[in-house]
Amino acid sequence: MTYRAPVEEILFCARMLGHDRLARTERFAEATAETRAAIVGEAAKMCEDALVPVQRGGDLHPARLENGVVRCSPGYRDAYRAIAEGGWVGISADPEYGGMGLPVSMAAAVNEMMSSACLSLSLCPLMSQGQIEALEIHAGPEIRDLYLPKMISGAWTCTMNMTEPQAGSDVGALRTRAEPDGNGAYRITGQKIYISWGDHDLAENVCHLVLARLPDGPPGTKGISLFVVPKYLPDETGAPGVANALRPVGLERKLGLHGSPTAVMDYDGATGWMVGPPHGGMAAMFTMMNNVRLGVGLQGLGVAEAATQKAAAHAADRKQGRAPDGSESILGHADVRRMLLTMKGLTQAARAICYDCAFSLDMARAADGAEERAAWAARGAFLTPIAKAFGSDIGSEVADLGLQVHGGMGYIEETGAAQFLRDVRVTRIYEGTNGIQAMDLAGRKLMDGGAAAAALFDEMDETAAACAGAGEGLAEVGAHLCEARDACRRVTDRFLAAEDLNDRFAGAVAWLRMLALTLGAHYLARAALTARADGPSAADAAEREVAARVFAARFAPQAAALAPAAMQGAAVLYELDEARFSA
Amino acid sequence: MTYRAPVEEILFCARMLGHDRLARTERFAEATAETRAAIVGEAAKMCEDALVPVQRGGDLHPARLENGVVRCSPGYRDAYRAIAEGGWVGISADPEYGGMGLPVSMAAAVNEMMSSACLSLSLCPLMSQGQIEALEIHAGPEIRDLYLPKMISGAWTCTMNMTEPQAGSDVGALRTRAEPDGNGAYRITGQKIYISWGDHDLAENVCHLVLARLPDGPPGTKGISLFVVPKYLPDETGAPGVANALRPVGLERKLGLHGSPTAVMDYDGATGWMVGPPHGGMAAMFTMMNNVRLGVGLQGLGVAEAATQKAAAHAADRKQGRAPDGSESILGHADVRRMLLTMKGLTQAARAICYDCAFSLDMARAADGAEERAAWAARGAFLTPIAKAFGSDIGSEVADLGLQVHGGMGYIEETGAAQFLRDVRVTRIYEGTNGIQAMDLAGRKLMDGGAAAAALFDEMDETAAACAGAGEGLAEVGAHLCEARDACRRVTDRFLAAEDLNDRFAGAVAWLRMLALTLGAHYLARAALTARADGPSAADAAEREVAARVFAARFAPQAAALAPAAMQGAAVLYELDEARFSA
Repeated sequence: MTYRAPVEEILFCARMLGHDRLARTERFAEATAETRAAIVGEAAKMCEDALVPVQRGGDLHPARLENGVVRCSPGYRDAYRAIAEGGWVGISADPEYGGMGLPVSMAAAVNEMMSSACLSLSLCPLMSQGQIEALEIHAGPEIRDLYLPKMISGAWTCTMNMTEPQAGSDVGALRTRAEPDGNGAYRITGQKIYISWGDHDLAENVCHLVLARLPDGPPGTKGISLFVVPKYLPDETGAPGVANALRPVGLERKLGLHGSPTAVMDYDGATGWMVGPPHGGMAAMFTMMNNVRLGVGLQGLGVAEAATQKAAAHAADRKQGRAPDGSESILGHADVRRMLLTMKGLTQAARAICYDCAFSLDMARAADGAEERAAWAARGAFLTPIAKAFGSDIGSEVADLGLQVHGGMGYIEETGAAQFLRDVRVTRIYEGTNGIQAMDLAGRKLMDGGAAAAALFDEMDETAAACAGAGEGLAEVGAHLCEARDACRRVTDRFLAAEDLNDRFAGAVAWLRMLALTLGAHYLARAALTARADGPSAADAAEREVAARVFAARFAPQAAALAPAAMQGAAVLYELDEARFSA
Repeated sequence: MTYRAPVEEILFCARMLGHDRLARTERFAEATAETRAAIVGEAAKMCEDALVPVQRGGDLHPARLENGVVRCSPGYRDAYRAIAEGGWVGISADPEYGGMGLPVSMAAAVNEMMSSACLSLSLCPLMSQGQIEALEIHAGPEIRDLYLPKMISGAWTCTMNMTEPQAGSDVGALRTRAEPDGNGAYRITGQKIYISWGDHDLAENVCHLVLARLPDGPPGTKGISLFVVPKYLPDETGAPGVANALRPVGLERKLGLHGSPTAVMDYDGATGWMVGPPHGGMAAMFTMMNNVRLGVGLQGLGVAEAATQKAAAHAADRKQGRAPDGSESILGHADVRRMLLTMKGLTQAARAICYDCAFSLDMARAADGAEERAAWAARGAFLTPIAKAFGSDIGSEVADLGLQVHGGMGYIEETGAAQFLRDVRVTRIYEGTNGIQAMDLAGRKLMDGGAAAAALFDEMDETAAACAGAGEGLAEVGAHLCEARDACRRVTDRFLAAEDLNDRFAGAVAWLRMLALTLGAHYLARAALTARADGPSAADAAEREVAARVFAARFAPQAAALAPAAMQGAAVLYELDEARFSA
């Protein structure tokens, strides 16, 4: 079976999270439930018709570098055109430049579906979306007027150039230089690695957003500036003109995501234009990164959804002995059901977290009053690393379970289950490893004194209270939720009281996981309550209650049990001498 | 850095587990600590010198089927010869046929190291070891005399033929036929899939152990007989003669383990000889399977060890920003240390479980008195599915963490971190998926009324009591251990009281994991106590205490927290209609 976009589930999730509220704001007055249904339905069709057919071929026939030019996998050109022509690159971009101006929460649904349908290709428009937002906010009018329409229409694509061999997570160590050329532009010289979609033959131009250091730039991140550096220099009409002094010098041979060319880019005095102030490039790059971080969480979610569908279809199909319930398919076995319900539960939890994060970012722009907007912004900022890390983590976990459901066939590449696992693995690394996400959450995102976290805990309290009076099954869910939330609160308080930031960092990954699983229990409970309130469709309500019960019993206690790990502190980790690690 | 066999750690683990006791039995009187050190040291050298150099090449240049013949990866022939000539195939085989007659626990150490050094090649002698034991126990003297010397010397290799397209976990559904040829032999006809090392050019003959049904064989597993079916029929001198009517008709393209040819085997009236009684083939196959199951657990352990070494070396090497402890390498970051200590802890836990399982199997043969031997056999039988499932599970988990420690480089195939992840993934599937292992544990292995489990819990009590009086750090470890063990006891009691076996099956995977993590905390605590008792080397004792504390705080609570999942029962999993899974 091939991927079918879960349109109803997506719309249910958005409704459950209160996205209908967006249409009551001035900014997103057009973002009604009807618009959402139309957008999701259209994008679903495009994903199923144009992207799904190229997904396997991208794996089998990787992009390749030939005579200095990258040739993409078969069919990618047409598939990309379908994305661009549908307007799906610029869903939430400024209408002044041709964007749809829709909420990020609608873009999130589309990005999820594109990731499910063809992860490697979906990364290309994701990069563009990030750069579009960065330029909208940080670039001057000349750059905006020239570049944004091309990027939003998909005529030109975008990349993000941060990493150098000696400067990965430590961006401040970069060495790429930018020298003023006397005409308002700059000459960029240096080598960047791991550049996703660094070159290709899908569009007429590629715009690189490059971090580099000016001659007078101080060391570290405070001396870094940002430049837009196009593959072809725009001529006086704005069309791609002469080739810029840059080129891909190699493509990486990766575990997966073969359809996405990952380039080593060489800049040899290439012409670029500054975005944002001198030495102030990190702010604009952070805009792009935060945008893409949510997108990467959605990538994990998308793969989880596709892997779940594939495994469920296989299980229903595969005859193997007589199951305890009399079924002839392996779906009748308790452990197969356990795996599938786990996959479904983790996927639903990640979807709610990602969509709620997107919703917060929307409300941060659309809500009335500066204070309310600030609160939504803090909520979105807090949820972003959770969405990125949990979405990508469960992408791997669900793909891994999906492979297991296939048994021996899962290990054979022909089946396609292994591709999900290989493809999605990088989402836990790129745009900031999940360890970095956890440190961001435990460090920067707690600088509000824990206000954003506390507000989320209060929301959980409401859910738990509603569960308490909703029958035995949900009452149990509520009890599990309370236990997990108490543990989250305890760790949060400990973090806030910690004198040494490194004590937080030592427990950060465990804490992020606790929060995500607890949020998952909270959202699945809310989904069950929402379905019940919907009324007539008793089957749906019953199904969502089962999902909430399975998730809560299996994951909420695990969330709580991570507290000792989260609170153990850094000291014990440093009792071992460095030399003893590799001894 | 390349793999260095952890000789000291292996010998420490064996000593900690009381393997010295073997030399006090009549059967293994020669298996002294000195012999063990010599054997492990010799095998370590062979692994480092002969196997490590071919590990990457096997991945890059898979075995291939050409003109009906399988050609192996470069260097595999010489590497296999080193294994065979060192006598490493027959370490624990009967000396009467050329084996070393050493304990399984010594073979386990050698198998671990071979798996670390080159997993794909190590699978070949592992298959031989399994078949050797099966023939020693179940074959008649003619077959034993003819085949065992060749297998033990490594001149001939072995395979296990169970799976058919419609008969995977459900072996009873197989269709391969065996018809008497009137001369005491049988004609075997059918197709078998997923045959590891089903054909190759490393040795002069390949002996297939094939499950098939006699004309009068009833349906299901009770109608299955077992046959040894050589690629070349032995001539009157016992040398390989004319080709048998069998051939590899295809090799699978797999996620990993590329150096190991996985064949589709076609039997077209091939000549075979029965092993064991008619319709009684499953018993002999179970002997082979149980042997190999422990071996597969050791495979996971071996990859975990190798991946840990590689990640630790990378972390020590990789400069990236200034860490909180002033270090220039990423080893100074708390989260990197957390990952490495987790990898080390899981690896040590799996080693102790696998070696203790092996030791039990040894004592089941060597102990005085039938009752004592039966108790040891039950202990070994109980630990076997745990060793298989946990060893292979943590093989994946540790390899996955190892990739993450490498950051972006981990996703690039050249680094080699991804190969570990791809290679080891199949160990959770073959020789019975880990779900099957858990069902075996919760079903068959509890038919003793929980006696074997209870004996293990008593051992944990002793460890916890010893920890209680051993200072603050270990006291905390002891408390964590008690909590986890209580949870294990609770679930075990619930399982024993369950009227419906399916309630156990629904929680079996969670229960197995609980037991394994709790055993891990128990063994790491014992290791710390042992090191302290050793005296002088305070550094070693301190290091082992840190390992025990980190493991206990991070994993014992998780073990306990799996209890609700283990005890949730099957009913909730069946509340969802089959049709709703793929909806």
